[in-house]
Amino acid sequence: MITPKENNKLIYFMENDIAERDVTTELLEERECVAEIKAKEEATIAGLDEAELCFEYFGVQVKRLVEEGSRVREGATVMALKGSNKGILQAERTALNMMSRMSGVASLCAKARELAEGSNVRIALTRKTIPGFNEFDKKSAIIAGIDPHRFNLSDMVLLKDNHLKFFKSVKEAVRKAKKESSFSKKIEVEAKNKGKALKAAEECPDIIMLDNFSVRDAGQTIKEIRAMNKKVLIECSGGIDLNNLKSYIELKPDIVSLGFLTKSARGIDFSLNIK
Amino acid sequence: MITPKENNKLIYFMENDIAERDVTTELLEERECVAEIKAKEEATIAGLDEAELCFEYFGVQVKRLVEEGSRVREGATVMALKGSNKGILQAERTALNMMSRMSGVASLCAKARELAEGSNVRIALTRKTIPGFNEFDKKSAIIAGIDPHRFNLSDMVLLKDNHLKFFKSVKEAVRKAKKESSFSKKIEVEAKNKGKALKAAEECPDIIMLDNFSVRDAGQTIKEIRAMNKKVLIECSGGIDLNNLKSYIELKPDIVSLGFLTKSARGIDFSLNIK
Amino acid sequence: MITPKENNKLIYFMENDIAERDVTTELLEERECVAEIKAKEEATIAGLDEAELCFEYFGVQVKRLVEEGSRVREGATVMALKGSNKGILQAERTALNMMSRMSGVASLCAKARELAEGSNVRIALTRKTIPGFNEFDKKSAIIAGIDPHRFNLSDMVLLKDNHLKFFKSVKEAVRKAKKESSFSKKIEVEAKNKGKALKAAEECPDIIMLDNFSVRDAGQTIKEIRAMNKKVLIECSGGIDLNNLKSYIELKPDIVSLGFLTKSARGIDFSLNIK
Amino acid sequence: MITPKENNKLIYFMENDIAERDVTTELLEERECVAEIKAKEEATIAGLDEAELCFEYFGVQVKRLVEEGSRVREGATVMALKGSNKGILQAERTALNMMSRMSGVASLCAKARELAEGSNVRIALTRKTIPGFNEFDKKSAIIAGIDPHRFNLSDMVLLKDNHLKFFKSVKEAVRKAKKESSFSKKIEVEAKNKGKALKAAEECPDIIMLDNFSVRDAGQTIKEIRAMNKKVLIECSGGIDLNNLKSYIELKPDIVSLGFLTKSARGIDFSLNIK
Amino acid sequence: MITPKENNKLIYFMENDIAERDVTTELLEERECVAEIKAKEEATIAGLDEAELCFEYFGVQVKRLVEEGSRVREGATVMALKGSNKGILQAERTALNMMSRMSGVASLCAKARELAEGSNVRIALTRKTIPGFNEFDKKSAIIAGIDPHRFNLSDMVLLKDNHLKFFKSVKEAVRKAKKESSFSKKIEVEAKNKGKALKAAEECPDIIMLDNFSVRDAGQTIKEIRAMNKKVLIECSGGIDLNNLKSYIELKPDIVSLGFLTKSARGIDFSLNIK
Amino acid sequence: MITPKENNKLIYFMENDIAERDVTTELLEERECVAEIKAKEEATIAGLDEAELCFEYFGVQVKRLVEEGSRVREGATVMALKGSNKGILQAERTALNMMSRMSGVASLCAKARELAEGSNVRIALTRKTIPGFNEFDKKSAIIAGIDPHRFNLSDMVLLKDNHLKFFKSVKEAVRKAKKESSFSKKIEVEAKNKGKALKAAEECPDIIMLDNFSVRDAGQTIKEIRAMNKKVLIECSGGIDLNNLKSYIELKPDIVSLGFLTKSARGIDFSLNIK
Repeated sequence: MITPKENNKLIYFMENDIAERDVTTELLEERECVAEIKAKEEATIAGLDEAELCFEYFGVQVKRLVEEGSRVREGATVMALKGSNKGILQAERTALNMMSRMSGVASLCAKARELAEGSNVRIALTRKTIPGFNEFDKKSAIIAGIDPHRFNLSDMVLLKDNHLKFFKSVKEAVRKAKKESSFSKKIEVEAKNKGKALKAAEECPDIIMLDNFSVRDAGQTIKEIRAMNKKVLIECSGGIDLNNLKSYIELKPDIVSLGFLTKSARGIDFSLNIK
Repeated sequence: MITPKENNKLIYFMENDIAERDVTTELLEERECVAEIKAKEEATIAGLDEAELCFEYFGVQVKRLVEEGSRVREGATVMALKGSNKGILQAERTALNMMSRMSGVASLCAKARELAEGSNVRIALTRKTIPGFNEFDKKSAIIAGIDPHRFNLSDMVLLKDNHLKFFKSVKEAVRKAKKESSFSKKIEVEAKNKGKALKAAEECPDIIMLDNFSVRDAGQTIKEIRAMNKKVLIECSGGIDLNNLKSYIELKPDIVSLGFLTKSARGIDFSLNIK
Repeated sequence: MITPKENNKLIYFMENDIAERDVTTELLEERECVAEIKAKEEATIAGLDEAELCFEYFGVQVKRLVEEGSRVREGATVMALKGSNKGILQAERTALNMMSRMSGVASLCAKARELAEGSNVRIALTRKTIPGFNEFDKKSAIIAGIDPHRFNLSDMVLLKDNHLKFFKSVKEAVRKAKKESSFSKKIEVEAKNKGKALKAAEECPDIIMLDNFSVRDAGQTIKEIRAMNKKVLIECSGGIDLNNLKSYIELKPDIVSLGFLTKSARGIDFSLNIK
Repeated sequence: MITPKENNKLIYFMENDIAERDVTTELLEERECVAEIKAKEEATIAGLDEAELCFEYFGVQVKRLVEEGSRVREGATVMALKGSNKGILQAERTALNMMSRMSGVASLCAKARELAEGSNVRIALTRKTIPGFNEFDKKSAIIAGIDPHRFNLSDMVLLKDNHLKFFKSVKEAVRKAKKESSFSKKIEVEAKNKGKALKAAEECPDIIMLDNFSVRDAGQTIKEIRAMNKKVLIECSGGIDLNNLKSYIELKPDIVSLGFLTKSARGIDFSLNIK
Repeated sequence: MITPKENNKLIYFMENDIAERDVTTELLEERECVAEIKAKEEATIAGLDEAELCFEYFGVQVKRLVEEGSRVREGATVMALKGSNKGILQAERTALNMMSRMSGVASLCAKARELAEGSNVRIALTRKTIPGFNEFDKKSAIIAGIDPHRFNLSDMVLLKDNHLKFFKSVKEAVRKAKKESSFSKKIEVEAKNKGKALKAAEECPDIIMLDNFSVRDAGQTIKEIRAMNKKVLIECSGGIDLNNLKSYIELKPDIVSLGFLTKSARGIDFSLNIK
Repeated sequence: MITPKENNKLIYFMENDIAERDVTTELLEERECVAEIKAKEEATIAGLDEAELCFEYFGVQVKRLVEEGSRVREGATVMALKGSNKGILQAERTALNMMSRMSGVASLCAKARELAEGSNVRIALTRKTIPGFNEFDKKSAIIAGIDPHRFNLSDMVLLKDNHLKFFKSVKEAVRKAKKESSFSKKIEVEAKNKGKALKAAEECPDIIMLDNFSVRDAGQTIKEIRAMNKKVLIECSGGIDLNNLKSYIELKPDIVSLGFLTKSARGIDFSLNIK
């Protein structure tokens, strides 16, 4: 499902790529043809909706051969196309770049999700996404079974260390947030060490983020928070990647979030071949 | 230097990130403060112009402590800020995400450029960039001394395999391109094997791209093309990464282009700390 | 504080009002002048930030004589202007229309808030706002001490009756929401009668909305929910206006939301007088 | 009939309301369904074109059960829908908010028009509309048989008191307007009292606006203007609402304009019910 | 005076011209410099506001040496610039193209206005302007003392032959227009011959357009209309250029409009020289 | 073929022309009708794609009776329309203005191309186009067989006199360009006299532009450049129009470019007649 905002962005992306005119494609006679898109490496697929919109903009018919979120092997054909050679060639790069980045994020997310399988820990993104591409990064994560976390600054109250410096105490900050923020928003507090985390827990925010805690400190802190406050959700974040993710999951926080999943995602290679 | 197009995009990126309102920052009293941005890992820095524009949009004064393209160590302070806490906190994420992606691309590009040092081979990007972020990916490469290659489909004639299928021969294709395309555009032809490359070379396009050639085949083909046509530029592309780049450079083509540099770039971690 | 999105909208609003050219103002010699904006009726003031931006776009200096959210009497001067007559006259109508609608919403909200004073009940808007003007309607409410409720469909999960029809039971719906929605979002369930509300309460969503309950039914339902589930927030909504708001407040739900506050807000009359 | 400008605005309105993604609707299985929209109170209907565009954007088929401008009773079904539950639910709020505001304006306008029936007096809006929603407010009035007055500052010359301060006399102002403005624009002059109105009438503008005149003063002034100048149209404006409108109509000016019709319009309640 | 709409368009024009990046200017060291803009041919100058905005966007200081609408000789220096070489060079082409087209229209308009001097006939444009450039074409005409005529379809009722085909008679059409159109709009009727013009005159529209009348027929028709209806304005249009304009002026219609003034305007040559 | 950028511009052009609402067309009953568009003068036709898009936006069916680039006589019917009278009338002016300007440019270009027939000289535009209309001016030229030259500042390196002032020598400039610009861009150098042209030729840029050379000087310079450098393309530009074009062509440069073709193009008259 493509939102109106995504729809407008995708057309703008093509406008950027085609620019004044496709000086190569205009040399061709227009002809009907068929084409296939293949994954050139193993991947968790995302971006099919987006690629489809690009091709359909030019009247090209699209048949999906795999579903969003499915795992495919190297060489798998993921999409079949039928339509004007000029349409296919003009949409090609935007469509493939969408699939490349989105499947790249989805593939890394899928690995993280696998590490969490069997646990009740939720793996989440952060807001460390590509500017202007944020909703597509988030969507790729969702497709791969990962929690998108907040989309933007309007979505949730998250009192980070830089915010807390302007309050007398975390107590004052959380109380102000509870009083002045909408009931419809959750309130999360970032803590830099166990002491601060426990202080925060006393004020019962919805979520406490243990930021940049070592596995050991995180473990101890989670235990102590659980002892005093059963309701608050605990999120581990900061410096986590696929190497140490498992250790954090084993501490059974509610959420582990990784900037790594978007920051370190590599694009997946796809190729489009006209037959 | 920020173009009008980049300026509008950056404001739109902030519009996307702040969305309806920053529900956390609005809890703060407005106060003047100072802050610093640090690189949390070694990096080639790019995105300072972009970050500066974000902060200045909110009236925050920016002092750069390093230059675009400079190599910094882990922990280096790259930018000092002075202004409203609310302004700094609203611009923070967009500014840091710009620096993260752009420095990530620049850092990978810098490694590729180093491998080419001492040779006359030019290292280039491809069009495998993030949709909507293309000019920033290209700019990051330029900052790191890498050739951006064409920006979009309007920039150069590049007859790829998928285009050539609609011509009787590469000869017909190049001749048509020379006749119908603007003299202001270069003409490049993609070849999938030595035979096709030599056929292409006979037609004297500006550039021949050896696509997905093994090092060995590329070497042989370059030699034969040089023997018959001294003027045509030769570009190696397809399946090249930092591991095999050196081998391609040693063949002394004119250009080696790598989708790898944008597709596999990892974001660099930066942190903003209000004092 | 004006967000980038609001800033762009305000300039667009002026673009709409001035259109091709202000055919009256262009007949004037340009001169420096001073002007005043007065409230022609008692009001809770909102929209000063927005009016200021409009005038400053044309280089007009603005001095506020009252604060956002203050209550003023009929005839009160709320803003003093100094600058070009042409600038003042071109910005006038957009600035005044912003203040009129925003103060209208704020004034009605202020009345609702007064009725809730002394209680712990939070009064909230709904999403029944003017399309394209939603963030300004919400902001007016916030200025008047009213909870904006969710801004848009991305903000919170709210399972309304029309959604529940596509689930086997409210149980299935809430469980799916808890499992698939981001931990960063609250989950609210709308209930049409006591039986459904109690069923919903069993599933522990964050909030239960009693939709279109009579005061009597609402009272009974709140009592029973509180008995079984102390944590869930209870929101009364539907058919509530200033006449019956007090009765709902007395039931001590957590939230009472009123579409009335935006749907029935009358614009406040302001006049701008050049001296 | 929807103009290109209105079309783009409506899609933008939905983009604002859906924002990143509809986090509730995405929990549903997609299914075909039928739904109905009912008026929950008596109303003059407007906004059907706009609602239809919203639903059709998502592929939902629309059948109108009443016409734009028709008067319906409480409970009347105005529109039947058939299509994807997801489409219906995503378009719902924007569609209903359009109908609510537009029917609200139309309903108030219809009351004003009824008071004028049997007379030749034309009832008109002013420019006191919601910023960004101006064309829809105007369209609602037209649907209800009310004159929209000028749409924007480019539409007509209207020399208000604030403009006249920069001329030596109304004579100078009108003469300058006649000389310098396009023949395609009408010229109207606002007068604050009888003396000024008569001075204005001597210069034969197309229209004289009696601004904030008591019924008595207006009556006397109309008589005197008619005696000296049969061609000039006379508009009464300022401080007129449904209570005193009839008295002004009885004075037989050509036009009575009321900011009241847009400023005081209450939104009409509509509900959408999926069966 | 630049409207918000014009301001946004001008920035967009520069965005179009600079596109991804100015690949020539970026080769330069940034330096302060001074430059001059000269008219390379005699011209009536327009577009100074627009050029100024372009340069100031890049922080370049502008000093005007002539006024909008002034007549300059070949070689006259019209603007002096001081600022960054990079800013001047990036704004140059858009600024000069604005001045070229706008001065071109103004120069042709000035010639038409001279032919009308001493008469009371008003010379006007039509809507035959460059799409997307309409307000600038109209503004150029105004600067040269020419009536812009209506800006767009929203500005005035103009019943052309193609509209009249859908009415039983011109009588029905004008009566419908008078009844249903806003009092704020003028009503004009196009007539193809004397008979139709006289029929139209009986209905007293505000303006009658004699479309494509020979000078002789126009003269006779004007006489007969004046005899029966002193108030209606008469506009001659269609097939008029600088060769026959004088003959139409001598017939003393109220307006003569010429598509010729925008359709046949040649751009004026300007050059920018950095010292 | 219409690009996404052109598509969006065309809709925006119609939005500008229709503005708030077409106050004339809305007086008509909606009816199906047929119409024809005729050329009122001999012309080389361009703009059919654009006109078609305008009409199809309103659901009007279009049948082309001539092809883009064909030469038609005065009175030729170029397009037949079938659809709603309201749709045809709302799209009419934008469609006709597109065809008028585009055919005007194409007609002038066709004349230039004819003068070059039999030679190998390529006739080209410059960047002296209408701001915001640049791609349509370029496209008109292409349709008429003329080289569009670079589209914008991002397209090619063109070191003009104003750029060269910031280098020690043309040698330094070209070397820097060759080193720092992308291999995908051509490099052109403007020379003001023979001496400079020969200096430039020594550096082997892709193209040398002889700017404002007399025919005699150009002839001599071309000869000398050819003697020393067979590869460099030579472009004559500056002060060339249809009167002296032939003389420049006879010198056998590679390219002759004329700002004249866009600056001096007159719009072609088309009329739309509903039957």
